[in-house]
Amino acid sequence: MAKSPSLDDFRVPYFGDKKADTFSPEAIDPAAKPFSTGSKDGDREHLTEIGVKLDVLQERLHAQRHHRVLLVLQGMDTSGKDGTIRGVFHEVDPLGLRTVPFRAPTPIEAAHDFLWRVHMQAPGAGELAIFNRSHYEDVLVPRVTGQIDKTECERRYRQIRDFESMLAENGTTIIKCWLHISKDEQRRRLQARIDDPTKHWKFDLSDLEARKHWDAYQAAYRDALAATSTELAPWYVIPADSKTHRNVMVAELLLRLMEGLKLEYPPAKAELKGVKIE
Amino acid sequence: MAKSPSLDDFRVPYFGDKKADTFSPEAIDPAAKPFSTGSKDGDREHLTEIGVKLDVLQERLHAQRHHRVLLVLQGMDTSGKDGTIRGVFHEVDPLGLRTVPFRAPTPIEAAHDFLWRVHMQAPGAGELAIFNRSHYEDVLVPRVTGQIDKTECERRYRQIRDFESMLAENGTTIIKCWLHISKDEQRRRLQARIDDPTKHWKFDLSDLEARKHWDAYQAAYRDALAATSTELAPWYVIPADSKTHRNVMVAELLLRLMEGLKLEYPPAKAELKGVKIE
Repeated sequence: MAKSPSLDDFRVPYFGDKKADTFSPEAIDPAAKPFSTGSKDGDREHLTEIGVKLDVLQERLHAQRHHRVLLVLQGMDTSGKDGTIRGVFHEVDPLGLRTVPFRAPTPIEAAHDFLWRVHMQAPGAGELAIFNRSHYEDVLVPRVTGQIDKTECERRYRQIRDFESMLAENGTTIIKCWLHISKDEQRRRLQARIDDPTKHWKFDLSDLEARKHWDAYQAAYRDALAATSTELAPWYVIPADSKTHRNVMVAELLLRLMEGLKLEYPPAKAELKGVKIE
Repeated sequence: MAKSPSLDDFRVPYFGDKKADTFSPEAIDPAAKPFSTGSKDGDREHLTEIGVKLDVLQERLHAQRHHRVLLVLQGMDTSGKDGTIRGVFHEVDPLGLRTVPFRAPTPIEAAHDFLWRVHMQAPGAGELAIFNRSHYEDVLVPRVTGQIDKTECERRYRQIRDFESMLAENGTTIIKCWLHISKDEQRRRLQARIDDPTKHWKFDLSDLEARKHWDAYQAAYRDALAATSTELAPWYVIPADSKTHRNVMVAELLLRLMEGLKLEYPPAKAELKGVKIE
């Protein structure tokens, strides 16, 4: 009998682990659907079920005001970061989410170290924050364009590990997902945007630059993931050519994480017992 | 034939208008359901339809990156501010919303004028921001508890009018909703929270203080609404004893407002025409 797939099969080995040297996220098939029920309708129903559970857990997270949860989403253009947020959190109270898009740094942001603006957006007690892009941009674009050299890039990997450890040690549970799409799937998605004029606002011709350096970006992701997947802040590779499957898998990961927190409502307040409102 | 209800029947007369002196929001029945389809199921279906439209409009708002929209929610405890956000925006992409809860000011916030922290949270171009409580708290609690006198309270009304005009003149479309519940309905809702220990985290015995001063708070709301309902930032009284009806009415108001903006996708980009992705 074939072993059923485990979420952990898609975890990037921890930094320092021997396996890390041989692990290649690109070896995972972006078109795979290991967590599919077998039908799109079935997957959608499953996603709604997980969403309802996440909603309940989020309320407890908020009520308990103790844990902090951070979900980091990274991936090439069109890999579905926006769509994942929409799909995974459809059932979750919008009051319980804080989505943070990181765009090109403003002059004020650029005047600080690259973790400055990120730290400011870290989730507080009881919060679930979702980073749509993140500090990982700073070890991707500048590396591919040659703005930083290998030494600086490795220094940043270390700074990221230290920063994320600090967050985790202070009560933040971190999960990082790399939405892994194929070059062919990206072509289809970009073409669809070009063919629909109402989607033109989503990009410029200059956005196609990154696609020209596809292999360099894949290498930059591979190195960044290997160097920053730690026990306290692991990376998962999400096969993302199928949007529904991508959503199911991210939702499953988050569900497992939040179930693991053993979230409970705070104890009843003795002074409220038996009170009758007039 | 009876005149069918209009959203404008629930608009607080503009400040300075003669009618303003005689308008009493309390005269509106909090149990009324003027925008109901007649059945709860019908209302829920209607709400979903509006939600889907709001989702489309929100995407255009974001794409166009020109208008800014601000929805302010105020109301007594249990009036349903959280529930409104959840209900009205269920179909709207969480990426398109920024919900801002205003709690008791932090020491840093309290060290500034009362509009300082509010200004910081104003929506930017393309943003839809929802204030869950707001600067109006500063003309409610301090007035009832006597921390500010009539002169200071009226000074703040004027400051609020000036501030909101400035936001509106710089491109922000503002709508303010007062969720109007009856004292009886509040009793039922508070009692339900007390009788369910998993809801105890939502309040302290001290929260019942405001209920003891129900009439004073109603008067404070009446005066604040009358003094700050302006053409650029009108107040609406939302009958809110029925949760479903409350959601439908707020959704209808927001839909009308967003339809009025004539939101469009930005024009297609000529340089993308006919581009084939390799």
